[in-house]
Amino acid sequence: MKTGEKVVLAYSGGLDTSVIIPWLKEKYDCEIIAVCIDVGQGEETHAIKKKAISSGASKVYVEDVVEEFVTDYIYPTLKAGAIYEGKYLLGTSFARPLMAKKLVEIAHQEGANVIAHGCTGKGNDQVRFEVSIKALDPSIKIIAPWRIWEIKSREEEITYALKKGIPISITKEKIYSVDKNIWHISHEGGNLENPWNEPKPELFDMVTPPEKAPDVAEYVSIEFEKGIPVKINGEELSPVELIKKANEIASIYGVGIADIVENRLVGMKSRGVYETPGGTLLYTAHKELESLVLDKETLRFKDIVAQKYADLVYNGLWFSQLKESLDAFVDETQKVVTGVVKLKLYKGNIIIAGLSSPYSLYNEELATFGEDKIYDQKDAEGFINLFGLPLKMRAYQMKHFVENQKYNKTTVGGEQ
Amino acid sequence: MKTGEKVVLAYSGGLDTSVIIPWLKEKYDCEIIAVCIDVGQGEETHAIKKKAISSGASKVYVEDVVEEFVTDYIYPTLKAGAIYEGKYLLGTSFARPLMAKKLVEIAHQEGANVIAHGCTGKGNDQVRFEVSIKALDPSIKIIAPWRIWEIKSREEEITYALKKGIPISITKEKIYSVDKNIWHISHEGGNLENPWNEPKPELFDMVTPPEKAPDVAEYVSIEFEKGIPVKINGEELSPVELIKKANEIASIYGVGIADIVENRLVGMKSRGVYETPGGTLLYTAHKELESLVLDKETLRFKDIVAQKYADLVYNGLWFSQLKESLDAFVDETQKVVTGVVKLKLYKGNIIIAGLSSPYSLYNEELATFGEDKIYDQKDAEGFINLFGLPLKMRAYQMKHFVENQKYNKTTVGGEQ
Amino acid sequence: MKTGEKVVLAYSGGLDTSVIIPWLKEKYDCEIIAVCIDVGQGEETHAIKKKAISSGASKVYVEDVVEEFVTDYIYPTLKAGAIYEGKYLLGTSFARPLMAKKLVEIAHQEGANVIAHGCTGKGNDQVRFEVSIKALDPSIKIIAPWRIWEIKSREEEITYALKKGIPISITKEKIYSVDKNIWHISHEGGNLENPWNEPKPELFDMVTPPEKAPDVAEYVSIEFEKGIPVKINGEELSPVELIKKANEIASIYGVGIADIVENRLVGMKSRGVYETPGGTLLYTAHKELESLVLDKETLRFKDIVAQKYADLVYNGLWFSQLKESLDAFVDETQKVVTGVVKLKLYKGNIIIAGLSSPYSLYNEELATFGEDKIYDQKDAEGFINLFGLPLKMRAYQMKHFVENQKYNKTTVGGEQ
Amino acid sequence: MKTGEKVVLAYSGGLDTSVIIPWLKEKYDCEIIAVCIDVGQGEETHAIKKKAISSGASKVYVEDVVEEFVTDYIYPTLKAGAIYEGKYLLGTSFARPLMAKKLVEIAHQEGANVIAHGCTGKGNDQVRFEVSIKALDPSIKIIAPWRIWEIKSREEEITYALKKGIPISITKEKIYSVDKNIWHISHEGGNLENPWNEPKPELFDMVTPPEKAPDVAEYVSIEFEKGIPVKINGEELSPVELIKKANEIASIYGVGIADIVENRLVGMKSRGVYETPGGTLLYTAHKELESLVLDKETLRFKDIVAQKYADLVYNGLWFSQLKESLDAFVDETQKVVTGVVKLKLYKGNIIIAGLSSPYSLYNEELATFGEDKIYDQKDAEGFINLFGLPLKMRAYQMKHFVENQKYNKTTVGGEQ
Repeated sequence: MKTGEKVVLAYSGGLDTSVIIPWLKEKYDCEIIAVCIDVGQGEETHAIKKKAISSGASKVYVEDVVEEFVTDYIYPTLKAGAIYEGKYLLGTSFARPLMAKKLVEIAHQEGANVIAHGCTGKGNDQVRFEVSIKALDPSIKIIAPWRIWEIKSREEEITYALKKGIPISITKEKIYSVDKNIWHISHEGGNLENPWNEPKPELFDMVTPPEKAPDVAEYVSIEFEKGIPVKINGEELSPVELIKKANEIASIYGVGIADIVENRLVGMKSRGVYETPGGTLLYTAHKELESLVLDKETLRFKDIVAQKYADLVYNGLWFSQLKESLDAFVDETQKVVTGVVKLKLYKGNIIIAGLSSPYSLYNEELATFGEDKIYDQKDAEGFINLFGLPLKMRAYQMKHFVENQKYNKTTVGGEQ
Repeated sequence: MKTGEKVVLAYSGGLDTSVIIPWLKEKYDCEIIAVCIDVGQGEETHAIKKKAISSGASKVYVEDVVEEFVTDYIYPTLKAGAIYEGKYLLGTSFARPLMAKKLVEIAHQEGANVIAHGCTGKGNDQVRFEVSIKALDPSIKIIAPWRIWEIKSREEEITYALKKGIPISITKEKIYSVDKNIWHISHEGGNLENPWNEPKPELFDMVTPPEKAPDVAEYVSIEFEKGIPVKINGEELSPVELIKKANEIASIYGVGIADIVENRLVGMKSRGVYETPGGTLLYTAHKELESLVLDKETLRFKDIVAQKYADLVYNGLWFSQLKESLDAFVDETQKVVTGVVKLKLYKGNIIIAGLSSPYSLYNEELATFGEDKIYDQKDAEGFINLFGLPLKMRAYQMKHFVENQKYNKTTVGGEQ
Repeated sequence: MKTGEKVVLAYSGGLDTSVIIPWLKEKYDCEIIAVCIDVGQGEETHAIKKKAISSGASKVYVEDVVEEFVTDYIYPTLKAGAIYEGKYLLGTSFARPLMAKKLVEIAHQEGANVIAHGCTGKGNDQVRFEVSIKALDPSIKIIAPWRIWEIKSREEEITYALKKGIPISITKEKIYSVDKNIWHISHEGGNLENPWNEPKPELFDMVTPPEKAPDVAEYVSIEFEKGIPVKINGEELSPVELIKKANEIASIYGVGIADIVENRLVGMKSRGVYETPGGTLLYTAHKELESLVLDKETLRFKDIVAQKYADLVYNGLWFSQLKESLDAFVDETQKVVTGVVKLKLYKGNIIIAGLSSPYSLYNEELATFGEDKIYDQKDAEGFINLFGLPLKMRAYQMKHFVENQKYNKTTVGGEQ
Repeated sequence: MKTGEKVVLAYSGGLDTSVIIPWLKEKYDCEIIAVCIDVGQGEETHAIKKKAISSGASKVYVEDVVEEFVTDYIYPTLKAGAIYEGKYLLGTSFARPLMAKKLVEIAHQEGANVIAHGCTGKGNDQVRFEVSIKALDPSIKIIAPWRIWEIKSREEEITYALKKGIPISITKEKIYSVDKNIWHISHEGGNLENPWNEPKPELFDMVTPPEKAPDVAEYVSIEFEKGIPVKINGEELSPVELIKKANEIASIYGVGIADIVENRLVGMKSRGVYETPGGTLLYTAHKELESLVLDKETLRFKDIVAQKYADLVYNGLWFSQLKESLDAFVDETQKVVTGVVKLKLYKGNIIIAGLSSPYSLYNEELATFGEDKIYDQKDAEGFINLFGLPLKMRAYQMKHFVENQKYNKTTVGGEQ
């Protein structure tokens, strides 16, 4: 790096990214452009700006991308039904490519050719950031101080920060490693590192634990148009308002906690606890609606797509050919995912209370016990006979094997 | 059919199979061997025998196959992690092939070549029965009176029963179509036929609805050996006892209700409500344990296996080459699925409270923030560079496309 | 059916559909509209019209849909890379839904509500026709005489035809069951029914058998744009011309014969021999080009899509939600499938002789033995360490199992 | 590394591994145990031993593992039907884990804790070696000189060798990078690095190019027992003899050349040409036999297994949980893969000439045009009606959508 070169730093306002500023300046004699990307984590903008400058940055950007986050990252993933390892709604995973996109845009704008981030060498986020940056501009250089510097523990970090005059506040983040945005909060570390330990009730930031949730259930209705939630309880809401409203309702009723031993991309298992109240509500409603309007073959294949989609997003492959191609598949399926889902929320439970769609494939007459005009029960015999034919043939295969031994021998070139 | 030929009838003791007896005798002038197979549905044996005889059967078998059901049907499916369409634990589906097996055995024993069953022409059970019978003995003839006779409604059925002197008791089964065994109860029909309707609280037979469950949570621990549950709360239990114990605990705490719009094999969507208290508990515990002891690649592929397994079981293909081959795969994976899972039950919630296994792949040291002896954070850079290489190449592909236009033209045979 | 009602008949001009005309008229006292759909089978139009009328039809349509067949049925399937059971290029399968579409259109135009076809009850075509008709207009009634009438053999058919004055010509079709269009010819029956028999050389209609092909190889180049072949040997061709040209070249060189024991949808195995000369050439070229321009993840998933696509097409599910959604996926992937493929044809072999694309992901510098600017070989160590971490952990899992026996016991609620 | 510590070196006898010996000794002051593993590459043992010692090794092992290679590595992969990216029969891939196993065994025997290999940092083999070593003994240290030393080109390598007194012979290996064993030869590099180049005829070592193959075809029959080839042309052969015989026959007739742009695990595309004559013959025969004896559902799932298996083997994950579990699946399917396959070989073509098995699921009577005793054509109507029901429902869904607009609105808690 040349002296005085600009480095764009993904800046959170926390200790881990603040200490990077003096370190980069000292090591590379560079200028730091701190970029804080607001995906709904609810930090106070003014304080962040002040902290970046006081830590040594020459310029600070605070970019509010919450709406883009909801419409271009959360909704496509919701429509895909992508859930990592059956539990994790990908809240951190899909925030990273969006952040990378903004970092690259600002780097281009500032004429910078280096991006730095504060991820450690053990997690997934370093991969998501770096792979996304490579996908958007492969010429940009990346610096990941936590992988290369001498600071190896929280204590050394604090010592270094004190030496460099970085303000320190001891918060809960010191116990757990936390990531927050409009969609979720994740918790790692602390006593969670032993999978025999139950999360402590005080861990939870967004969701009221089920045992403390109200004793009376509440009904909520969610209306979708082409796979996108558009109304809650009949009220039309903007994407950002809708997510906030969903969070508000679900969190009261104890909905949206996931506790998982997950497989990181970097080869190890880790333990995480996620709070995704509104997300859990919306995923549940969306899936129920799909069960009504999509046929079996489409649902089966969409499950395969969802699993692959989740892996791609988790692994940081957002800006990839396959992700874009899967989106095209998903969007085609969502043309009929329009309707209303009524749910009952009660102490952590989401109980289905009603499904309705103009595109419903469910036919009450067909499902009844008795006769109807569409379905002739006599057809079933023919169906079963053909459906069961391979097993019947196999039964013959096995039974008559001994007598059949007269099969053709290995005489080559001919006589059978 | 020859006069006086023996027909083995799958007999439940209910009205639907009782009316078949006089009908078969009248139509075919045959002898009826009623076979009631006890998979834990909890019917009273003596009453069933009496009812079959009084309905006109010449002989009655009541076969207790509960243990075989648990060890040879429930446990393999649990180990596979097979769940139909994400919700249904297959309680009815895997009972059918076992019943078919017993019917075929008794047919052979009795020298009978015809089996009759009481399934309607709209459901899955007819397929499961008939395909299983074909797989076990393709020479046996099958009669499905509900598909062929003139009785087309509940009213006509009752009229016919009264005419033939079949005792009738008006029960809840008249409102809903119910199937029960040691693993589950299913409910269909009645007000469930409109998917906009919520199940009424009085529907539930096994599970206390969450709102009526105790206000205080309970912990339960389940110990597995090679994928099989062997102890609950430290107490070693026989397979049948274990399922009963799991049902007892889970049902108190509101665990195990599933409400689903499902895709039947016969081409239609139907609505079902299932109660599988102990099953839900065991599936959850088993899956959690697997997340600790199986590596990512194995878990991903096992998910694919689980989905296929569920479809096979649901579709009645139990006695098939593929089902047996999937079992071999599953059994190989289960060699390390040994350990203890601690769960907290509370008003419909199963909260993970602790995982432990001698085969755990989770390594606390690896998962921590700081340094360790196994993992060198500097390795991450190389990993990311190679992992991200395809996206980097794609970025170049897209960027430099215009200049690259000098690509080889279609000159055949040569010069480039 | 009401007297005088119109029946639209899928008419081929052959004996099997000709005998249907008098039979339908006799049985239903209806009017027959014969519809012959030209998908390039090369039959003489005038003769067909004459034969239909002389067999008793009141009206004849001959619809030339060859271009629609190529662009809307062949090309999407080619882009998908769909091959049934690894061999069959679906030539008959995707002709059926197009025929069904035309039959339904003509039925609407004629005010007819009944469609009849000449497929037997053992094959796939009956399913493809009927399912496509149901998908396009579920109110139309379908008659499949071969499943219901008394004619059970070729001899009875000829007797009936003679009685009804249908002209009969003894052709090779009498020995094999043949289906032909611009894309392929299929052969079934005759001596092929024993899978121990090799096809006789005189079987082949389109392709010169390899042993009789020229002794000197020929090069051919095919240029694709977004997955669609647009030029052969540098010459721009219309879709129909292009397929004809591809057939012409490939068939000379013995390319495109497939001999298969295939699984029919209706539950049995059958033996078929297919000739698809141009199709084989185009599929090969397309796949090679994709290997150059699509990344690994996309290729892997596209293989899954291709398999599902082939099953859908084979099973007659062309007009389905899933097929349309898979098309959207495929089209997204094809945006970069542009370039030239040079192939050498020699006695049944298609030998790759050159690949080139402006979107190539292949980088010569990367692939070389020595150093380059993009790839740092030192990165490999980090990659391997993380990639191999799960196996390393498993090795520890297995090794240290015995000492690890101190794992948590099943004490509930607590002390571990 | 401690002075005088033993290093086990994977030694081929070629220049690339010979230069490692003096380099390791100079750099680490260690003792070198050269291990040459004979997987049928056909090198002269005595010369290799001499060369290792003259290059500075203190001890040389030459291990003949050809039989183990065939029975424990080639046959399981053949039974799985695993082919990488549709073309590559994995000849190099599955040799690496076996070599790693032997290296680890000798390391244990010699009390060595370090293994070195001569793979470059750009290929797959480094991964396969190292991951396999980690899986077998995670405590062993690995040295990969080509990734770390200063030698960066062929010229520098030769200079270094001359300086160290390593004997040099200029061979074809200088032009192409070649790997050979009993199963295959691979070629990379040279003019192959441009995918627009056709392989030159002189490239081929094992297979006679089709154009030079005999003008007259030959028939060959292969007999399998439970998926394993046991006889060729009726003659029972040991595994090693059988592979040699298959190679001998197939190579004469131009069979077994594959030209591929493949996706390496390390993120790049590379071009390879493989000669696998006997392997291609055996794979073809095995697949044909399976088409006769396995039902559709099993074949479909086995295809998924085969693709995953190929990726695992290619990626070096031989000693993994998933690979072992897939083997269990495959072995279960192979119980019926017994029978004879007759093939006609002609100038690069493998033409199927006859299939026969006591376990055949093909039934000639079923496949015929006319009537039979197993299959009732009338069943087809019922089958089609149920099979097509979802599409029929979708047609109604789409048609009646407008009138259906009366669907339930989002009123919560109630009235519909």
